[in-house]
Amino acid sequence: MERYNDKYVIVYDFKNVDTETAEREVTVMIDDLETAGLLTEARAGYEQTLLVFVKAPRELLGKYVYRSRVKDWLYGIVQTHPGGTKDSVVDGDFEAEDLLSVYHLVNWPKDRGGAGITPGLGQWENVTSIFPLHNEAANQALLKHVSRRLFLTNEDLDRIRDLHGSKVAFYFAFIQTYLVCLAFPAVTGVLTWYLGGRYSLTYAILTCVWCTVTLEYWKVREVDLSIRWRVRNVASVKVNRPQFRWERIVVDGAGEPRHHFPRHKQVLRHLLQIPFIALSAALLGALIVAVFALEILLSESYTGGYPGVVEYVPTIMLALVLPRINGLLERVAEAITDYENHRTADHYEMSLTQKNFVLSIITNYLPILITAFVYVPFGDEIVPWLSAHTRSLLGQLGQRFLAEGEGSSHAVGGVVDATRLRDEVIALALTGQVSSFFEENVLPVAKRKLHAWYRTYRAPTTTMPTTDDVEPFAQEEARFLRSARDQATRTPYDVQEDIAEIVLQFGYLALFSPVWPLISIGFLVNNIVELRTDLLKIAMEHQRPAPVRSDGIGPWISSLDFLTWAGSLTTGAIVHLFGASSIGAGAWWALPITIFISEHVFMGFRSLVRYALQRVGSAHIRRERDERYALRARYLREMEAGEAEEQRRRGGGGAQLSVAEKERRKSVRIMGGEAFFTRQMEHGASTAAGLSLIRACRGVGAVGEYEDDKSHLD
Amino acid sequence: MERYNDKYVIVYDFKNVDTETAEREVTVMIDDLETAGLLTEARAGYEQTLLVFVKAPRELLGKYVYRSRVKDWLYGIVQTHPGGTKDSVVDGDFEAEDLLSVYHLVNWPKDRGGAGITPGLGQWENVTSIFPLHNEAANQALLKHVSRRLFLTNEDLDRIRDLHGSKVAFYFAFIQTYLVCLAFPAVTGVLTWYLGGRYSLTYAILTCVWCTVTLEYWKVREVDLSIRWRVRNVASVKVNRPQFRWERIVVDGAGEPRHHFPRHKQVLRHLLQIPFIALSAALLGALIVAVFALEILLSESYTGGYPGVVEYVPTIMLALVLPRINGLLERVAEAITDYENHRTADHYEMSLTQKNFVLSIITNYLPILITAFVYVPFGDEIVPWLSAHTRSLLGQLGQRFLAEGEGSSHAVGGVVDATRLRDEVIALALTGQVSSFFEENVLPVAKRKLHAWYRTYRAPTTTMPTTDDVEPFAQEEARFLRSARDQATRTPYDVQEDIAEIVLQFGYLALFSPVWPLISIGFLVNNIVELRTDLLKIAMEHQRPAPVRSDGIGPWISSLDFLTWAGSLTTGAIVHLFGASSIGAGAWWALPITIFISEHVFMGFRSLVRYALQRVGSAHIRRERDERYALRARYLREMEAGEAEEQRRRGGGGAQLSVAEKERRKSVRIMGGEAFFTRQMEHGASTAAGLSLIRACRGVGAVGEYEDDKSHLD
Repeated sequence: MERYNDKYVIVYDFKNVDTETAEREVTVMIDDLETAGLLTEARAGYEQTLLVFVKAPRELLGKYVYRSRVKDWLYGIVQTHPGGTKDSVVDGDFEAEDLLSVYHLVNWPKDRGGAGITPGLGQWENVTSIFPLHNEAANQALLKHVSRRLFLTNEDLDRIRDLHGSKVAFYFAFIQTYLVCLAFPAVTGVLTWYLGGRYSLTYAILTCVWCTVTLEYWKVREVDLSIRWRVRNVASVKVNRPQFRWERIVVDGAGEPRHHFPRHKQVLRHLLQIPFIALSAALLGALIVAVFALEILLSESYTGGYPGVVEYVPTIMLALVLPRINGLLERVAEAITDYENHRTADHYEMSLTQKNFVLSIITNYLPILITAFVYVPFGDEIVPWLSAHTRSLLGQLGQRFLAEGEGSSHAVGGVVDATRLRDEVIALALTGQVSSFFEENVLPVAKRKLHAWYRTYRAPTTTMPTTDDVEPFAQEEARFLRSARDQATRTPYDVQEDIAEIVLQFGYLALFSPVWPLISIGFLVNNIVELRTDLLKIAMEHQRPAPVRSDGIGPWISSLDFLTWAGSLTTGAIVHLFGASSIGAGAWWALPITIFISEHVFMGFRSLVRYALQRVGSAHIRRERDERYALRARYLREMEAGEAEEQRRRGGGGAQLSVAEKERRKSVRIMGGEAFFTRQMEHGASTAAGLSLIRACRGVGAVGEYEDDKSHLD
Repeated sequence: MERYNDKYVIVYDFKNVDTETAEREVTVMIDDLETAGLLTEARAGYEQTLLVFVKAPRELLGKYVYRSRVKDWLYGIVQTHPGGTKDSVVDGDFEAEDLLSVYHLVNWPKDRGGAGITPGLGQWENVTSIFPLHNEAANQALLKHVSRRLFLTNEDLDRIRDLHGSKVAFYFAFIQTYLVCLAFPAVTGVLTWYLGGRYSLTYAILTCVWCTVTLEYWKVREVDLSIRWRVRNVASVKVNRPQFRWERIVVDGAGEPRHHFPRHKQVLRHLLQIPFIALSAALLGALIVAVFALEILLSESYTGGYPGVVEYVPTIMLALVLPRINGLLERVAEAITDYENHRTADHYEMSLTQKNFVLSIITNYLPILITAFVYVPFGDEIVPWLSAHTRSLLGQLGQRFLAEGEGSSHAVGGVVDATRLRDEVIALALTGQVSSFFEENVLPVAKRKLHAWYRTYRAPTTTMPTTDDVEPFAQEEARFLRSARDQATRTPYDVQEDIAEIVLQFGYLALFSPVWPLISIGFLVNNIVELRTDLLKIAMEHQRPAPVRSDGIGPWISSLDFLTWAGSLTTGAIVHLFGASSIGAGAWWALPITIFISEHVFMGFRSLVRYALQRVGSAHIRRERDERYALRARYLREMEAGEAEEQRRRGGGGAQLSVAEKERRKSVRIMGGEAFFTRQMEHGASTAAGLSLIRACRGVGAVGEYEDDKSHLD
């Protein structure tokens, strides 16, 4: 079985251009690739695409891999020089290392030795994607291995890193760590539920503590893995993204030209996020509140026809409108992120995902927050008020369809209660998990199957023929090409989306866990499946991601920090309002006190956990420190070897001064320079002087007895 | 004028030992010093002390200075190798660099090439101190220079660093930065006061913002200066303190033996601080509350004789008892810090000072907090309750001396008001400043003068004669010796105490500024004087500090962070309770809401300031990055020079493969290895294949037209 471990595919789509342009662009592209030293093979793709297979010759690749290692060392990402000279040719330690260098050869600008092929950008807007081919055998083996074991070890994570690079591997490391930690709230959750504790204070505290410990532990683990994978601070070595617009070239202290974009401008542009988030929150919030109000109104007071249908109208409206508004906001987020002008592709990607995450936080958590803190506690006042106002607003129409507020059974009775909150959380959290499972795993497969069928159906008239080889190894090649063509039609894999999903889930736990303690066991089961299906998803439904490196899950840490902190507020408030044993018996005036206490206990505990974990540190950090120390120690030993010898020589003869030095010092004395240290110059003179001084003082202690012993003046 | 810029003095006190021991110890000491290669001169000190003057010969010192620079480079403190070889002899760039190496030669253990003289420890318990002699001319010049200018520039701070080392210089940098920043609250404070704003919300917000900005700015400035002075992360290079007790020697990854003390034990020991601080706070708190209660009781209800005297009894009691209890607690703090087993002297010193600072925070701020949040708001209820309870407790006696609670005019009237709070803050903050000024500057001078007078008075019978030289340069030497003897009687300078004072002052501002807006102008004036008198104090009243290095003010940053945060709580609360426009009209139930808002606005603002300042960064950080980049760039350029040449060669002939490579690939194909990339091997073959594929697809689009163009298979 061949290992297609260092092939890249460039997909050129000529659907939207005339033949002439297509020919010109393809000629330039292949020329550029060949100029960069790459081997190319052009083949037909599905529909009007051309697949250019790219591979780096052994020597070129080995040199690039070596150079990239040296660069890592220069930028302080690893502590030890890789050895070798500038002409060294090395094999990648693992598949992803080789692949990354091929990626750089294709993607990097020409002045860095690459071919400068940037999909969708400028000259290359018809290049739809660049992706490495899946290593199907390795994928299969990994999936089989992972499906057989419950916990992934470091070695298992290494295998993921070997295939897909550290950025993807960090996602799996994160979900794995989180998954193992989930066992604790799952057990305590079941216990709490069994003991009948609803809105239990104990469970809330335990979960808050758990969130903190999990998060702080992950931070250590992240550093640990980043050292294990030799990618710590890897961001500093990343090149500019092609879209980065610099204002001028600055010649830095090193006499090196650098693309410069003023820092204060960048900060100011980043600040644009604040109004964007505030406005989005306001917009989405208003929408959700409106739909919510309408829903309540209809379910509580509507008396017209088709009540079963009318009740769902607002939810359906929301379902129709929300994706559109979200889509709009996401486009705005993208525009803002473009404007922010990030230097590296990583920063850009992360900044964008963060914005989208804030949007999804609002749509996911706001309904629950409204239910918990507005609808349930104030429902009895709000519903009559709402229906009264609506009636007066709608006038004639309202009179006809809405019941009298006073007469409504719901508004008076106790139907507006805490079960509504529980249902809301279950509905949003669990259906979210299930629907995202379908969206991720079932839908794309169905879509692709359908598309493939359609393609075959239309094949005779519009697609290129693909399997008419008759050569001896044509069979093999035909299979290979079929797979490559199939991969070319897939979408790229975006690891940030998967991380966002887990972070959102963590948020449910941090913010609303006391509402329904069983939620964590649901999450636990979901994640055990999720981890495996995500691996499968990458292998079967997506293009293989370029194995780019990162030293962790980046700004998601801040999101998790934020959610844990917010959790200390909301769980405190929920337990206060709905729980049994609250300060001031759950009164509103005591709520800020509860929140204040809850928040500060959390912050104190967090400092403690951070302090302890930072001191204890991680095994890899210690090993790295040891290595660095070894390097220095060796250097110092060499220096000190000579020194020690000299010391011994000196020790043998006491502090005997050389004749020359003695003469020099005498001459200094005579010349009127610094005379002081010339007095007790002979060996033992100081000691003699000291002893005589002590004796003088002790002996009689009178003035006459002592004199400034002229003997030690020379 | 001579520059005594590299002399150390070792003070040996033989008051408490017999002559024999003294002689033995002095012999060993001078022998050790000479073995380390140092020059020595013994002279008599005041009373029963011996002064051993130590100086390193030029060659030894130069070698040590060089080695220390190399070590800095190895430990990553500076980015560029100092140049030279292991036998290089260099001059210190400034006085403190030379002095530090002399200090290491005297103080470091013998296996590191030092003489191992550790004052007050084990073998050397009769060595009372080791100190460098003041450079009086430089001190004078510096004082004169500083007294003539209002703002210290970086160059002025450099001069302090040159004389006293970076640890001391950082204190002056801190007070200078703080002082300049103080101008803002001083101006707004005067304005607020002029406009009659008591407990002004605006002023409170401005001060809170100011605290945050000042603190975050100082953090940047600290990093800036630490790079300027080449001491960033200098802690890692520090040697073990002699008291450090390791459990075992661990051979680390580098095969290097290292003294190891288990990390988890250290963390557990550090956690001891928490009960200590809690208990101290409880003890001091109880004491202060008791005295407070007694004072109130007496001033409000005492009706016996001598009211003017009796009223002050509790305060006098407190004044007598507090120092004793504080002293006791400080000894406990020292014992705990000993037990914490810090590896370096710096960590030990900082940990101890932090504990003492917590104690002083409690004694300084607690009375104000009690006045603000208990006495003033609840005084009307507490005073009658107190006097009633005391009366029933004291029985007969109480009946005689205490007025009826009901009849007392104070308890009913409005005397318990906010002016009491203002008076308390003014009294504690300003008298604290004034008294500390006297304690620092006036008292020690008076004490030493008195002591000197006493010494002269008793001289004929107990002290050694010191000025009976008759040699030609005896006059000069006599003057020098008089100065050295005088310095030997001084106390060492502790920079931490001075920092603590400023941090305490910052705390008053952060916590209680709205109480009396004029307070910051008082602080401003005080600090302008303080900066100068502190320089004078070091020069005139203390032994010159060993010029040890540090990269900032260390854990004081956390103290300042804590105070700023606490300030967001207290100022919010004070404005709420005493101000004009509060939520819920200053009601108690609304207090937590105010505090919650105030705290979270503060935290949000702090994140913003941090974010912005970290992005903008500091000039020195950028320059350091540039330097590192230059180093790497040079290295990379060398590597790439060869690469580029090859690239050109390759570019010239397109991607023409070497004959050998072609043959190899062909043979691979024939051997049945990876055959795919052998198809379009000739130059231009891929392009031709690509173009024909596009044409085929475009041309007619039918199956028959296209065939897998055999021409590009070989």
